[in-house]
Amino acid sequence: MQGKATLLKVYLGESERYKNKPLYQYLVHWLKEKGIGGVTVCRGIEGYGADKVLHSARFLELSSDLPITLEIVEVAEKIDPLIQEICAMVPKGLVLTSDVHVYKHGKE
Amino acid sequence: MQGKATLLKVYLGESERYKNKPLYQYLVHWLKEKGIGGVTVCRGIEGYGADKVLHSARFLELSSDLPITLEIVEVAEKIDPLIQEICAMVPKGLVLTSDVHVYKHGKE
Amino acid sequence: MQGKATLLKVYLGESERYKNKPLYQYLVHWLKEKGIGGVTVCRGIEGYGADKVLHSARFLELSSDLPITLEIVEVAEKIDPLIQEICAMVPKGLVLTSDVHVYKHGKE
Repeated sequence: MQGKATLLKVYLGESERYKNKPLYQYLVHWLKEKGIGGVTVCRGIEGYGADKVLHSARFLELSSDLPITLEIVEVAEKIDPLIQEICAMVPKGLVLTSDVHVYKHGKE
Repeated sequence: MQGKATLLKVYLGESERYKNKPLYQYLVHWLKEKGIGGVTVCRGIEGYGADKVLHSARFLELSSDLPITLEIVEVAEKIDPLIQEICAMVPKGLVLTSDVHVYKHGKE
Repeated sequence: MQGKATLLKVYLGESERYKNKPLYQYLVHWLKEKGIGGVTVCRGIEGYGADKVLHSARFLELSSDLPITLEIVEVAEKIDPLIQEICAMVPKGLVLTSDVHVYKHGKE
């Protein structure tokens, strides 16, 4: 993969669950099974979403529900068919794409 | 919100302050008051900015001044009116936008 | 720098090395020497790349090889000449660019 590609970014909460697993871990596993070439998961230190509840590493009681982001970079043909399923798995999250230009991907 | 939107990203230093508060915390609060639908704050482990001073989690003395990023995703009409005010609050930081396509945002 | 610019993002593994240094630290130093105006390095908590090996902060044995991202924002004329060299230094990683609009950069 080189040239035009799609960056898919998903924002969700660390405590969200899906099928008895943390949602972000479920998504990583699911994306790997779908043949997606890579996923990067980051944890934020603070944030709020549509419900306007502030989550922060500064608040002990909410520190286990920090913001999580997942990033996937793939050709559009591999990402587009998955977006609706991802949206359904992420009821409270944010799902977006942007156009990127890939110069190098893995061992190519 | 679905379709075309703007991702606003702000890069600043953890130790920057504004009105007696850490700047990034002030910004989160301020953006919430302005009706912005969500903010995600991340802390980096290393970096430098315009002054070329390297901040790193490896250096104890600078570990309380690590890079901080804020991400906001909204329709352009809600973000554009705030950008000049944000720039004024972030004297040493980097403020940028990019075009994104939103598939899902919160509980819609 | 204001107006159109390029965001360069590099994804690599924390344990990758280059010339006896952690690769991401080498890159930060190298980019600074090349006159790049700023770099932000983040560490993820989980992820996999082209080799499909899952790295996670949950697995002690792989926790020292978490995903690392570097972000650089510059005018295209300063980034473009560096991309092939960066790709050569990052054999297993992902290197991409996207278009951004910069409103503020450093002390301007």
